[in-house]
Amino acid sequence: MESILSLTGIKERFVQGDSKTSIRPIFESSLMANTAPILHSDYIEKEQYVQNPHLDNMEEDILYHLNLGTKTHNLPAMFGDIKFVCVGGSANRMRSFAQFIHQHLELPGNADDIRDICEGTDRYSMYKVGPVLSISHGMGVPSISIMLHELIKLLYHAHCRDVMLFRIGTSGGIGLPPGTVVITDKVVDSFFRPQFEQVVLGKVITRSTELDKGMAEELLLCSNELSSFPTIIGNTMCTHDFYEGQGRLDGALCSFSIEEKLEYLKKAHEAGIKNIEMESTVFAAMCRVCNLKAAVICVTLLNRLEGDQISTPHDVLVEYQQRPQYLVAHFIKKQLALI
Amino acid sequence: MESILSLTGIKERFVQGDSKTSIRPIFESSLMANTAPILHSDYIEKEQYVQNPHLDNMEEDILYHLNLGTKTHNLPAMFGDIKFVCVGGSANRMRSFAQFIHQHLELPGNADDIRDICEGTDRYSMYKVGPVLSISHGMGVPSISIMLHELIKLLYHAHCRDVMLFRIGTSGGIGLPPGTVVITDKVVDSFFRPQFEQVVLGKVITRSTELDKGMAEELLLCSNELSSFPTIIGNTMCTHDFYEGQGRLDGALCSFSIEEKLEYLKKAHEAGIKNIEMESTVFAAMCRVCNLKAAVICVTLLNRLEGDQISTPHDVLVEYQQRPQYLVAHFIKKQLALI
Repeated sequence: MESILSLTGIKERFVQGDSKTSIRPIFESSLMANTAPILHSDYIEKEQYVQNPHLDNMEEDILYHLNLGTKTHNLPAMFGDIKFVCVGGSANRMRSFAQFIHQHLELPGNADDIRDICEGTDRYSMYKVGPVLSISHGMGVPSISIMLHELIKLLYHAHCRDVMLFRIGTSGGIGLPPGTVVITDKVVDSFFRPQFEQVVLGKVITRSTELDKGMAEELLLCSNELSSFPTIIGNTMCTHDFYEGQGRLDGALCSFSIEEKLEYLKKAHEAGIKNIEMESTVFAAMCRVCNLKAAVICVTLLNRLEGDQISTPHDVLVEYQQRPQYLVAHFIKKQLALI
Repeated sequence: MESILSLTGIKERFVQGDSKTSIRPIFESSLMANTAPILHSDYIEKEQYVQNPHLDNMEEDILYHLNLGTKTHNLPAMFGDIKFVCVGGSANRMRSFAQFIHQHLELPGNADDIRDICEGTDRYSMYKVGPVLSISHGMGVPSISIMLHELIKLLYHAHCRDVMLFRIGTSGGIGLPPGTVVITDKVVDSFFRPQFEQVVLGKVITRSTELDKGMAEELLLCSNELSSFPTIIGNTMCTHDFYEGQGRLDGALCSFSIEEKLEYLKKAHEAGIKNIEMESTVFAAMCRVCNLKAAVICVTLLNRLEGDQISTPHDVLVEYQQRPQYLVAHFIKKQLALI
């Protein structure tokens, strides 16, 4: 297989010391439309993750919710070799994923000894194993958004290049057997639109939620090679609420009938939506604006056309949750030419 | 002082066994306008926390993210005596709060021995000390919303009555010295409107975010009695993003100038907004619809007119974060006639 890493079109590598000169002028159009960064150079076309001209005027940058900072930590030494970042809601799951990757890449040392880099805070957990960073992001768009802002600044301060991001998570499926893995084609909002609305200074800005198609196709190929569980590419709906927002009948509040619920879910199904989760719009939008290749891989825990409650036995749920992990681990091994 | 508990107007207590007959018809108008529940009885005016006619048709209710359920746990025995529920973002902080309340109420046993009732999941942490429940909710509206749905169902299944809810948290202040405690008068959104927009089956429903004025005034009185730190009543803005959404210049993305940021914050200040956080719109809206008396008490960690980064020393931040806890502990002691 041809490595995706070789397809990024980067002719020269970023020089660590030149971060002061690397910021290009920021226009809202580039934040919205993800215009490819073009520098004033005939030879260097480089990635520029952060999109903020103010950062280079700061003497210190405290990544408050990660409990890291540019004066208190040597971020290039700690994180400079990162090539893959995997994010997921649960801290325990992201620790397990880091241990799994440690074993899978046959890294030296004991996988049980990896420590939480964010251990001074309980907002997020972060583990590093070789070139892979595994971070939890909690539940919902605001929670993952805080983590992504600080992660992207971390990658910038650490002078990371050619980084790929993966969201591995759980979801409710629409018309799929539980346990199916959905690799996201388009992320859509509650109105089935492929966009993310961000309020900035009291004004609504709309951003595209397009993900990297090459990564999605490569991940599907990985699943075919593993042939261990059903995997499809489809659209993913991201909502801001688990109960009313996803048409569940079992919340503390519910004002609609089962027929109205099913009508909504069937409309979603007709729009190509295969699963529903709560973080992928802002994940896709921020990665796109920040020139980070990204993919969303979520397993379905139930078929929402058949019910709302997650009553599958715990051990089956645990196995389901490992499926996106297997897929991403296989992808990473191929990227690193270890297979 | 006259106890607020005596002001609820409840003439007869809810009979535990009659939950099957207690659901009144649900109309969207009652969900939106929080119409007081009137039963077909001349004598009983009772609280009805859940607003969902489907719940009583369910054989089992699995509170998935709390790792509790009606078949696996005896919820009335575990939680039936709850009178005060305190929620906050950080799991560690809510554990500390539970230990603090344990000491403050002089309950028997060792405060260090209290265990996380949700220990089978890392989504939320929950501690019970006497009549007080302390729960973490993570960051952002979607995260607290999931917890509130399951908490309110828990209170319903456990046949709790006369429960008061408190959100104790951290926030950015506007024009206040760091460390000031803000008891929320009105919760407003990013457009300074006292409302919460909830998407239900692809349609936007608007709910009031009015909180209990009696609790706010009583909490201010408690602060006067303690006279340990500055406390005010003011409006609180709730945003869905910590960086761009709160006008910060130090995120991974920023497309506005310091002048534009200050213009927005000054407009907020003119609208009576004293602090900014990320959960209170949905907290106020859900409590109001579900007939739960509620208050929001947040300490300010910085003055946003002077900066964006939280660079205050750790020990000072820890002391600031204890201030809302002291206030609520004092309030609870007064309610229990322990002072």
